[in-house]
Amino acid sequence: MKNLIVGQSGGPTAVINCSLYGVIKEALSNTSQIPVVYGMLNGIEGFLKDTVLNITEDMSEETLEGLKITPGAYLGSCRYKLPEDLSDPVYPELFKKFEQYNIGYFFYIGGNDSMDTVSKLSRYAAAHGSDIRIMGIPKTIDNDLVLTDHTPGFGSAAKYVATTVCEIGIDASVYDSKSVTIVEIMGRHAGWLTGAAILARKYEQDNPVLIYLPEVPFSQDKFISQIEENLKTRNNLVVCVSEGIQDDKGTFICEYASDAGVDNFGHKMLTGCGKYLENLVKDRLGIKVRSVELNVSQRCSTSCQSLTDAMEAETGGRFGVSKALEGQTGMMTAFVRNEGDTYGLSYTLVDVNEVCNKEKTVPTEWITKEGTDLSKEFINYVLPLIQGSPSVPTKDGIPAYVYRR
Amino acid sequence: MKNLIVGQSGGPTAVINCSLYGVIKEALSNTSQIPVVYGMLNGIEGFLKDTVLNITEDMSEETLEGLKITPGAYLGSCRYKLPEDLSDPVYPELFKKFEQYNIGYFFYIGGNDSMDTVSKLSRYAAAHGSDIRIMGIPKTIDNDLVLTDHTPGFGSAAKYVATTVCEIGIDASVYDSKSVTIVEIMGRHAGWLTGAAILARKYEQDNPVLIYLPEVPFSQDKFISQIEENLKTRNNLVVCVSEGIQDDKGTFICEYASDAGVDNFGHKMLTGCGKYLENLVKDRLGIKVRSVELNVSQRCSTSCQSLTDAMEAETGGRFGVSKALEGQTGMMTAFVRNEGDTYGLSYTLVDVNEVCNKEKTVPTEWITKEGTDLSKEFINYVLPLIQGSPSVPTKDGIPAYVYRR
Repeated sequence: MKNLIVGQSGGPTAVINCSLYGVIKEALSNTSQIPVVYGMLNGIEGFLKDTVLNITEDMSEETLEGLKITPGAYLGSCRYKLPEDLSDPVYPELFKKFEQYNIGYFFYIGGNDSMDTVSKLSRYAAAHGSDIRIMGIPKTIDNDLVLTDHTPGFGSAAKYVATTVCEIGIDASVYDSKSVTIVEIMGRHAGWLTGAAILARKYEQDNPVLIYLPEVPFSQDKFISQIEENLKTRNNLVVCVSEGIQDDKGTFICEYASDAGVDNFGHKMLTGCGKYLENLVKDRLGIKVRSVELNVSQRCSTSCQSLTDAMEAETGGRFGVSKALEGQTGMMTAFVRNEGDTYGLSYTLVDVNEVCNKEKTVPTEWITKEGTDLSKEFINYVLPLIQGSPSVPTKDGIPAYVYRR
Repeated sequence: MKNLIVGQSGGPTAVINCSLYGVIKEALSNTSQIPVVYGMLNGIEGFLKDTVLNITEDMSEETLEGLKITPGAYLGSCRYKLPEDLSDPVYPELFKKFEQYNIGYFFYIGGNDSMDTVSKLSRYAAAHGSDIRIMGIPKTIDNDLVLTDHTPGFGSAAKYVATTVCEIGIDASVYDSKSVTIVEIMGRHAGWLTGAAILARKYEQDNPVLIYLPEVPFSQDKFISQIEENLKTRNNLVVCVSEGIQDDKGTFICEYASDAGVDNFGHKMLTGCGKYLENLVKDRLGIKVRSVELNVSQRCSTSCQSLTDAMEAETGGRFGVSKALEGQTGMMTAFVRNEGDTYGLSYTLVDVNEVCNKEKTVPTEWITKEGTDLSKEFINYVLPLIQGSPSVPTKDGIPAYVYRR
């Protein structure tokens, strides 16, 4: 009989706590094998400082259920990278702590970097004959993990982007005059989330008209001429850009912005590419232009949580625990989309070493119209992931989020 | 038997179409007195160009019902100010058009400037013996209209602010390190909406810790020392600022920003006060800081629509029509909060001339802690207005917004 410890790492999402819920619920339902469920506070970094929560004893049923609609990372997060050198003293230190808490199951919920942690710990365990089962649960709004159809967190972020871009388009279209609205969307290297803006279109030709992904080299001149061209036949243009767009020299467009402005403290004004492009349009075309940075709400909005995403996150967490109990280790829960026209998902495990430090971008053949639009295949891929809305309990008019104090 | 025409004007809100719905529904249920309901497209400006929609004939039941969850201005909007001089030829031109459409009832949904339009048209009508009844329906997220307890649009915007600031606070608190997050909220002269951020607090001492309204002169030095003071006892600080904060000389803080940055087109980098303060904190305190501009989503989010707000907007629209049928003109629908502990609202009419070009700000006695917090009275005032969520029909995973093409 060994205990389980679970932690969260990297940037938060709208459903990372659903994954946590799944891991906890499945573990709590196996008390004969898992006497105590622990949570690391602030991931592996907090664990090294012994900040550990006894979930079995100290988490109320109400809090546990509330996790499903609470964004952020309930246990706290960290951005701690374990050393490459497995002979570093931090490893025996960690495994001594595991022993101290009688840990037999280690779960880490996170993205690329977190899977790197899972990889290193599982390799160390294997090399030192430890039987602790080290498992990864995927999470990232960027949807850039390989070997899984998609990642928990992406569906809700995509739903936020689609809904918000649609609302911004409605808002931007109320006046009978020419205007450009530039929406900057998260995703430094992969355009999945920016691409999801296409789901905002209510009919063909509707906004957003132009969508720029980081997968396609960005040309400022072409951008301006594409806007000019589209303004010939319509009034209000909504344009979506990934924060990570870069030109053919590999320079991020937002870097041009930071080269540009110097504030009156003598510092560079760091702004995103949206603000930079707003100024570019104003300069070149002299028309009304606004930029909107969707910012952190993309990854923490409960109002736009996708029920599909939430349920898949929970099931993925449960699946990982059930497989660890069967003896698996060094694996990450992954999603396999079922064949056929009706959306359905199967769960599997993949070798975490094959996942970490790799990146899945949008296939080139799904990017159309000179890099400004997305294909039907892309829409068919994303659409099922944003379906359904959870029933959200409220307190004083806002969602009844749960919290640690 | 005379027809009714309705228009929308000024910036959109999440419920301006609920007001429109109320006006239309009430008018359509009185066909014996009102044979045809028309909509001006793009307000009075569009009406002058004869862009008129025959709602009775051309609006489907589905579209009509969809108005209730669709943000923006379904009929389109304008920012057209009628001349002060009532002998300007535009007035007889307008009244000739009214005659052409056999208009007996003119409804204008909007804020301060729109009430100015209602005032001028009603005074012109009175002076020229016209019996057209000219009525105003209030709308503004700023909540700055006088003679009404609050304005339709404010409750939903307040709910968006409270919900989003709470989520941003959760998102900002995942790491175990010092950070400052500055949230910039709409409201150039009145701090109602920024103040609503206080509803994000889940417990005393919770974020947002500091709230700065435009009603209080803003000191950059004091701002920095208040942040420093609070960081002594806590890690992650969320600070809310109104876009309209200004110093004791009356200079908007965002003006310092635009004085500061010059982009590489040689233009001023126009940013909000949030970005400016982000740079100020970075410069003075050298800690991790981020700014988030809530931007247009504050006024166009269906996900955070307040059912109370939506229903009051509809009822206000209906009330105005019923009163116009009784013979009223030159009036605006207004809200009176019932006495007692349980929230309830009565509807009344106020003289539109007493409303336009005035501004209601947050009472000084409701602003506490050296201008960085709000009193219990403020909370009691706002809290009832954000209650309830509409049932939102969806299409392809996002709300089934209706639109004109």
